[in-house]
Amino acid sequence: MNAADPTDGGCPVPGRERSRVLLGHGSGGRLSAELIGEVLLPALGAAAGDGPLEDAAVVTSAGPALALSTDAYVVSPLFFAGGDIGCLAVHGTVNDLAMRAAMPLALCLAYVIEEGFPIEDLRRVAASAGAAARAAGVPVVTGDTKVVGRGAADGLFVVSTGLGRRLDGAAPSAAGAAPGDAVLLSGTLGNHGITVLSTREGLGFEADLRSDTRPLHRLVEAMVTAGGDALHALRDPTRGGLASAVNEIAGASGVGIEIEETALPVPGPVRAACELLGLDVAHVANEGCLVAFVAPDRAERVLAAMRARPEGRDAVRIGTVRDREPGTVWLRTAVGSRRVLDMLVGEQLPRIC
Amino acid sequence: MNAADPTDGGCPVPGRERSRVLLGHGSGGRLSAELIGEVLLPALGAAAGDGPLEDAAVVTSAGPALALSTDAYVVSPLFFAGGDIGCLAVHGTVNDLAMRAAMPLALCLAYVIEEGFPIEDLRRVAASAGAAARAAGVPVVTGDTKVVGRGAADGLFVVSTGLGRRLDGAAPSAAGAAPGDAVLLSGTLGNHGITVLSTREGLGFEADLRSDTRPLHRLVEAMVTAGGDALHALRDPTRGGLASAVNEIAGASGVGIEIEETALPVPGPVRAACELLGLDVAHVANEGCLVAFVAPDRAERVLAAMRARPEGRDAVRIGTVRDREPGTVWLRTAVGSRRVLDMLVGEQLPRIC
Repeated sequence: MNAADPTDGGCPVPGRERSRVLLGHGSGGRLSAELIGEVLLPALGAAAGDGPLEDAAVVTSAGPALALSTDAYVVSPLFFAGGDIGCLAVHGTVNDLAMRAAMPLALCLAYVIEEGFPIEDLRRVAASAGAAARAAGVPVVTGDTKVVGRGAADGLFVVSTGLGRRLDGAAPSAAGAAPGDAVLLSGTLGNHGITVLSTREGLGFEADLRSDTRPLHRLVEAMVTAGGDALHALRDPTRGGLASAVNEIAGASGVGIEIEETALPVPGPVRAACELLGLDVAHVANEGCLVAFVAPDRAERVLAAMRARPEGRDAVRIGTVRDREPGTVWLRTAVGSRRVLDMLVGEQLPRIC
Repeated sequence: MNAADPTDGGCPVPGRERSRVLLGHGSGGRLSAELIGEVLLPALGAAAGDGPLEDAAVVTSAGPALALSTDAYVVSPLFFAGGDIGCLAVHGTVNDLAMRAAMPLALCLAYVIEEGFPIEDLRRVAASAGAAARAAGVPVVTGDTKVVGRGAADGLFVVSTGLGRRLDGAAPSAAGAAPGDAVLLSGTLGNHGITVLSTREGLGFEADLRSDTRPLHRLVEAMVTAGGDALHALRDPTRGGLASAVNEIAGASGVGIEIEETALPVPGPVRAACELLGLDVAHVANEGCLVAFVAPDRAERVLAAMRARPEGRDAVRIGTVRDREPGTVWLRTAVGSRRVLDMLVGEQLPRIC
């Protein structure tokens, strides 16, 4: 069939306005070219490259120290207060790079789309990803689009991969936390997870809440400037929440970590929702804060640098790394008792990112 | 719930042998750590890094000229004669990098898994990806695993992203083809697409066929050594087949391309299947060959270098770039007539890669 074929119905005719994604949009042929050229690329705006569509994008690195990170996004619903799967995919990968003190050089976006997905929703998601990439100052250099039949995917999945350039002066690693380190948290807990859950289940909490999804690389840059190699470890407490993030650091660094329960900043609506739903806020996902493990002599300086940035305004010290019980995290509660803060077991909040 | 909880049934207990993927395997918590530590990482073998699990992997580049490529794999069925979704994801991304004359430095793998997917199948896929990465000489430096509920995905999708180092001496680009260039094809056509289609539909052709999935970077390295900057454009004719690949080059380079139909190498079983099914072999996907556009004075040398490698053994010249009808591809047929070879319209063979 060629483009002049008048057939309608099962056989898609290129060049026609369409409101839903067709299997043919994933064919690698003319409809794929239309979807990319008319929907996905324009949505990126200045974040898109301007050359021909190539099998791979060419990137020039400013130095030999690079970071690479990939994340699959399957969040449900796709749109929620404060964000959507598009900006989430950009922020999540920018933030994973930032956790290794790397500034984003280039992003890739791959879409897996269910046949019948509304083109208008795809436009919104792609525009949100484009706006997030422009705001973060990172180009989307390449991508891929696949379409699967009805029922073979739930609407839309997005996989983002980022290449970053590591900053000089700091080399944070999950294995870098040391006894005595201050544990700093850059923002309030639970906003993303409770917002997505509440939107999905129609619980109503999302009226007072929004996801904290945002890029953290400029916050990290300020922390590196203030703290240098005193920045031992960084982690963003996404899936699995603060508990998983801190336990992973405790395990990889071979240290014990003591968290002060009363120091944890939890917004009122998040606290209320967690109490009602029987959730531990330490297991709820976040998309716009980080935990830092910083040598004690520079912790105050790093904390001040964090608070000087909008995304670190609520930064607080929440604990201390200890030289006992390696691999264990414990909470000191308000009444002075102590309980182990374990990683999430099983699935508390599926498809939160 | 903690690890000592004796509950069985809906509540997953970590540390227990399991035969199917659970939602909790995507939680970011303890079950995620088990899946990664016991299934995905061991499958990579020497292709896996040996440090702690970090948010992003650190990569050292040997030079400033890099390439980046991402591809989502949704092939159905997951296993087929000659390969599976795991090795396909590695080869496909290695090959996309190679099309920019880049040798693979690092790969990322992201899995989206449907709840209930057999762990044994996941092991097979991960082992195949690991073996393919080792054979290609590229480490898998980072990854991600998400699990969605039953019915929200069709078994398993894999997204691979590759970082490559560009070779000196050649800078092939989709926009680089020039009038007079020889069009070279490195192998026979249609093997992958017909094998997957035949396996999926139970047509029986797969008894005589296997996918041509394989890495092409060493072939490209040999071609760069032989041809240098005479290598104007490279494309692997995957989804959309030879027709889409050559049309994309014609469009991006603003040239006409003439293909000799009788020169196209098509194995007997592929030809028979295409005739029976009413498919044009030029639209059928390949995963182990490439089309090269090479300046005429070095075309014979490049062709000889291709034939000297096992993956280029069947290399042939299939056409010539012309300075008329820019953006058009035409076939000269056996009887000397001429027909336009258009890009695939709509979807001929869904989920072929």
